[in-house]
Amino acid sequence: MTLSTAPTRTTAERSLPPADSRQQVRQFVQTLQDEICQGLEKLDGVACFQEDLWEREEGGGGRTRVIRGGDVFEQGGVNFSEVWGTELPPAILMQRPEAAGHGFYATGTSMVLHPHNPYVPTVHLNYRYFEAGPVWWFGGGADLTPYYPFAEDAVHFHQTLKQACDISHPHYYPTFKRWCDEYFYLKHRQEARGIGGIFFDYQDDRGTLYRGPNPESEAAAYSNALGDLAPRSWDDIFTFVQNCGRSFLPSYLPIAERRRSMDYCDRERNFQLYRRGRYVEFNLVYDRGTIFGLQTQGRTESILMSLPPLVRWQYTYQPEPDTPEAELYETFLKPQNWAEGQPNC
Amino acid sequence: MTLSTAPTRTTAERSLPPADSRQQVRQFVQTLQDEICQGLEKLDGVACFQEDLWEREEGGGGRTRVIRGGDVFEQGGVNFSEVWGTELPPAILMQRPEAAGHGFYATGTSMVLHPHNPYVPTVHLNYRYFEAGPVWWFGGGADLTPYYPFAEDAVHFHQTLKQACDISHPHYYPTFKRWCDEYFYLKHRQEARGIGGIFFDYQDDRGTLYRGPNPESEAAAYSNALGDLAPRSWDDIFTFVQNCGRSFLPSYLPIAERRRSMDYCDRERNFQLYRRGRYVEFNLVYDRGTIFGLQTQGRTESILMSLPPLVRWQYTYQPEPDTPEAELYETFLKPQNWAEGQPNC
Repeated sequence: MTLSTAPTRTTAERSLPPADSRQQVRQFVQTLQDEICQGLEKLDGVACFQEDLWEREEGGGGRTRVIRGGDVFEQGGVNFSEVWGTELPPAILMQRPEAAGHGFYATGTSMVLHPHNPYVPTVHLNYRYFEAGPVWWFGGGADLTPYYPFAEDAVHFHQTLKQACDISHPHYYPTFKRWCDEYFYLKHRQEARGIGGIFFDYQDDRGTLYRGPNPESEAAAYSNALGDLAPRSWDDIFTFVQNCGRSFLPSYLPIAERRRSMDYCDRERNFQLYRRGRYVEFNLVYDRGTIFGLQTQGRTESILMSLPPLVRWQYTYQPEPDTPEAELYETFLKPQNWAEGQPNC
Repeated sequence: MTLSTAPTRTTAERSLPPADSRQQVRQFVQTLQDEICQGLEKLDGVACFQEDLWEREEGGGGRTRVIRGGDVFEQGGVNFSEVWGTELPPAILMQRPEAAGHGFYATGTSMVLHPHNPYVPTVHLNYRYFEAGPVWWFGGGADLTPYYPFAEDAVHFHQTLKQACDISHPHYYPTFKRWCDEYFYLKHRQEARGIGGIFFDYQDDRGTLYRGPNPESEAAAYSNALGDLAPRSWDDIFTFVQNCGRSFLPSYLPIAERRRSMDYCDRERNFQLYRRGRYVEFNLVYDRGTIFGLQTQGRTESILMSLPPLVRWQYTYQPEPDTPEAELYETFLKPQNWAEGQPNC
């Protein structure tokens, strides 16, 4: 494991956050927001992000940046927020009971981009950090939601994330890839939201990687079979999160570049609008960040910035057999080992 | 209180469901579904409902009827379902702990209609009946979601529901109207979904009308101030529910008739699509029927039939001052005593 040790801290101290932990993470997520916005504006070439600064009554605030009506992006946003309060919401306390009765601090950046062209995938990213009394943890990830099936895009996205993860530990990518498949799953549709990516939560000095709610899941079984890592330091995990965050632009820009000018018709546009409905269903019914935001009286417009600009629902829609739309359902909306190349399909 | 007594049953017996309770309610909700579909087809004049019969693996099934591409209706559905199983979901057991460990039976009809013309309001109705071990109850209601402000429509809708409620007891309408305002409230927007109507749940032989989750609410305070009714019989409540259900067509058809041919432009259509987003947010984040359906492995396409065919989200939209859109927000999306006539606005 590559360690970015802070030389002035002993090994015992290294499982505790440094004195300036909040400042370090805040600076990282703000810089990440800046870099991502610059990279996306350069890609789009037409639209610029509009920024809204906001404050939260109970403590904290953020800067929301929204891009609209661009050449690539129909609508999208990159949020930074930093919030604190007297107690975490019940759903999180169930996972981290040691935090009960303590104040909390949380900072992070989150992003969702909805392109115009149905051949350009929607993409989501979120990296976040929490401190609450005796506990701290990092969470986050990135995942891709294509509307049309291009195996080379899926392979590129996953391989880029895998490379970023592998710098820290070879167990990270395969565990967090499986956790991503588990998390971005629409139970009521029995369908993945997209082709996944990586997802992790509650990463602290303990060596168990999977800390999700489902001990029977494939991600849990995989993590158990690998066994626990040696205890990790705050710096180890922060370094890992930084590597992941910085891998976003290289993971997405080449895909958007090669799809942005492909011709499409009403058929592809209608399918994109229909599939966007799944994004809405996931974010409003299941998404942890959305629920945390609404439960902690966050800024509604910033939280729901992730919803698409235009969406269709169509009763009992099913793709025609032997079409690209059917291939999306049959192959891309089921977990695949994309980092190892194209599946046998 | 008007009683529809079953002459062969004693007063003590009348607080229990009759031996054929399930058959009686099923027949009523199926007939109501038939009558509503016929009335709506006659109104639309072009489109007909398409029916899907479905079965539920764990027990029960239903008939889903969807209307699309009509002269009045862009999309809408009227569902009937009858389901049973070994135990109610946790959210309901919290409200009715006596049902724990018992099998359950539930039947009902639910409806959402999304018209084309932004001047025609979206409307929702649901009436349902539960039995579980020693307990039984009725729930339901109807509510209107206009996109443009017409006080005469709001007055007509509420007065029609009030007349139906008043047949049973004068406390019903004012209590269930307040409960409706409480229930169809988007906390994260601090905004009503529409102009309300009536909503009730857990209505059984006990005389306390408000049985919602919020003992501090206005509906609870109003119900407490009125005091409890005398114990009610199963027949009393079933009669009340029947009267409410049958009041739907007279409450809605005249409104749709007088708005269906009004001219509109992109501005009104865009506002309608934007406001439909609130419907999606409410149904996926808060709605009891949606959550019950998804938790009990209901038929997803029938549950999410309530979602609009086309929806917009727009970051930080606000209506221009002194426009009909602003009047909707300022007056119609706040509780008003519509049954008493137009508010002072």
